[in-house]
Amino acid sequence: MGDIATRTSPLAKDKVLIFLSQDPNEEWVRKIESLYPGIEVRWISNYTPEGGFTLPDDLPDEVWEGVTIYMGFNAPPAERMSNVRLVQLTSAGTDKWHNHPIYKKPDVPFCTTNGCHPPQIAEWVIGSWLASQHHFQRYTENQRQGFWEGPMAVDFEDSVGLRMGILGYGAIGRQCGKLGQALGMEVYAYTRSEKPTPESKKDDSYCVPGTGDPDGLVPSKWFHGPSKEAIDNFLSQDLDLLVLGLPLTSETKGLIGAEQFEILSKKRTFVSNIARGPLVQTDALIEALEAGKIRAAALDVTDPEPLPKEHPLWKAPNVFITPHVSWRTNGYWERVVGVLEANLERLDAGKPLINVVNKDLHY
Amino acid sequence: MGDIATRTSPLAKDKVLIFLSQDPNEEWVRKIESLYPGIEVRWISNYTPEGGFTLPDDLPDEVWEGVTIYMGFNAPPAERMSNVRLVQLTSAGTDKWHNHPIYKKPDVPFCTTNGCHPPQIAEWVIGSWLASQHHFQRYTENQRQGFWEGPMAVDFEDSVGLRMGILGYGAIGRQCGKLGQALGMEVYAYTRSEKPTPESKKDDSYCVPGTGDPDGLVPSKWFHGPSKEAIDNFLSQDLDLLVLGLPLTSETKGLIGAEQFEILSKKRTFVSNIARGPLVQTDALIEALEAGKIRAAALDVTDPEPLPKEHPLWKAPNVFITPHVSWRTNGYWERVVGVLEANLERLDAGKPLINVVNKDLHY
Repeated sequence: MGDIATRTSPLAKDKVLIFLSQDPNEEWVRKIESLYPGIEVRWISNYTPEGGFTLPDDLPDEVWEGVTIYMGFNAPPAERMSNVRLVQLTSAGTDKWHNHPIYKKPDVPFCTTNGCHPPQIAEWVIGSWLASQHHFQRYTENQRQGFWEGPMAVDFEDSVGLRMGILGYGAIGRQCGKLGQALGMEVYAYTRSEKPTPESKKDDSYCVPGTGDPDGLVPSKWFHGPSKEAIDNFLSQDLDLLVLGLPLTSETKGLIGAEQFEILSKKRTFVSNIARGPLVQTDALIEALEAGKIRAAALDVTDPEPLPKEHPLWKAPNVFITPHVSWRTNGYWERVVGVLEANLERLDAGKPLINVVNKDLHY
Repeated sequence: MGDIATRTSPLAKDKVLIFLSQDPNEEWVRKIESLYPGIEVRWISNYTPEGGFTLPDDLPDEVWEGVTIYMGFNAPPAERMSNVRLVQLTSAGTDKWHNHPIYKKPDVPFCTTNGCHPPQIAEWVIGSWLASQHHFQRYTENQRQGFWEGPMAVDFEDSVGLRMGILGYGAIGRQCGKLGQALGMEVYAYTRSEKPTPESKKDDSYCVPGTGDPDGLVPSKWFHGPSKEAIDNFLSQDLDLLVLGLPLTSETKGLIGAEQFEILSKKRTFVSNIARGPLVQTDALIEALEAGKIRAAALDVTDPEPLPKEHPLWKAPNVFITPHVSWRTNGYWERVVGVLEANLERLDAGKPLINVVNKDLHY
């Protein structure tokens, strides 16, 4: 007992700054401060009542004083982060950080919120796919006019036996795969590096219980390789639905262009982008939609973003656009704070962190 | 060899009339006629080029001559069916037949197409649920105006941990349950009769491979009983999503009325009706929507049906209506004909038929 009481936590001198779109959870803060005596938690909401965000730059200096653990989405100026020893991102992507001096420090681990997004983002993917396949927009329009259209006026195709290709079989892709499989689809997975063994197919990022494919058992076929040829080969697998789940890096920027849409035109693949807008060349996408090379596209991300009012992508045929909201859910921040909590526990116990970014690969 | 060649099939004198919304599959007809020498298959499409249907009454007398096996949706006049010994419906419901003299003959089995609908109807249920939860109509509207709305303007709730109640855990309900479980939902099942044993929880109707819950393993809790109290008790289980999957019978007509919406108001349950319109009292439904007692309703069936142009249900808040199309899919008729094929095979072999209607329960 005495030993435990007098043990000094490795977190005893840490100052944690939490900067996210959620009011402070005082109960959680008290729990953390009593678990790790000496730790100080500063939790500031970046959400303005008008629906906008404040940035880390907007915070007064004293908030940053002595901060050793930062949790947030946007990158603060490097000089404010001189003492930071752990960055817990509130996003799955790292692209805002690649040129940041703190990101470049090898001894400062960056952790993502991998695993907090899959349920809601996979819902967005499957929901927009089904809404398109079942002509929901047509019926919403009919409803507005009180028009009960004959049931044979249009064709329907359910998902049984169709093929879903997931370009980037990470945590989000795995929950898309799980849902696709439940719909009766065949799932093909692409990962950058080869996954030849059952062990290598596993994903050990945070996973909401009961969701995802942590053991990599869903795909009937795996593809890999960073080359353009390898990716084009994946795209040519007669996919009905293509889910873009890759991180945005110099390698993946503009990956889907005119040539790739040409490949996808064979099956008129439905393209779903829930990753980052610049993975796709917007001009080529508009062209592919206008030419009917793909049956439709569902985009939660665009390039540019936000999409300006007069941008032609808004009016392209068979496109559905939402303003980068697929990650949102009432349960999100609770899950995100859960990842930080797991990592504090691991820091305290001297165990390896979860969701650590490989800074060469940026994910 | 000789024995097999000279064996007379029990189907040798049957005349099969197939009357459905699909052009004759000549190859299939030839296959059946060579499998069961002597059988005669007449396949007539009821689909008019204008998108309407012809009725069995519209068929000339000679088509009906000697018909012993009828496959169709609508009920022909009884006198045309005097020789019929098997009716293979092209629907899951039997309500068009309850007062038909042939239905009342105990020695004429009626078989449904149970199991042909679950994939596409469950897609409709989950698609409309997700479209509502993820505010797709709002974003479609925004898109029309080129409006990139801030991501925090509206709340989202994913399905993890939410509860789906399936009133009528038949073949369709089981695929809804499978998808709900994959989304991370808790699934509660209601069946009319008690299912106390693992064996009784099984469903042996036709099932598209890889879909459904044939062994009844998905629900975490089962409810049963035909009484109003039993059903109200099921409705009071804090359901986030209620799927109506009951057959329409004198017992279930008008089942969901003002009292039931009052019960559902506790959780503002989302109500999805993919069964039959008259299960729900339309006036009470409009009232519940207008008062916000339920968060939304998705209706593929209505009462009356078709819904007249000026009917107030079209304009009720938070309702999504489609014109009884959720059963449709390009793969549908192939599956339906597959059920008939399975039953011909069973008739020939003297085995019990699949999907036989219990005429006391009408399903």
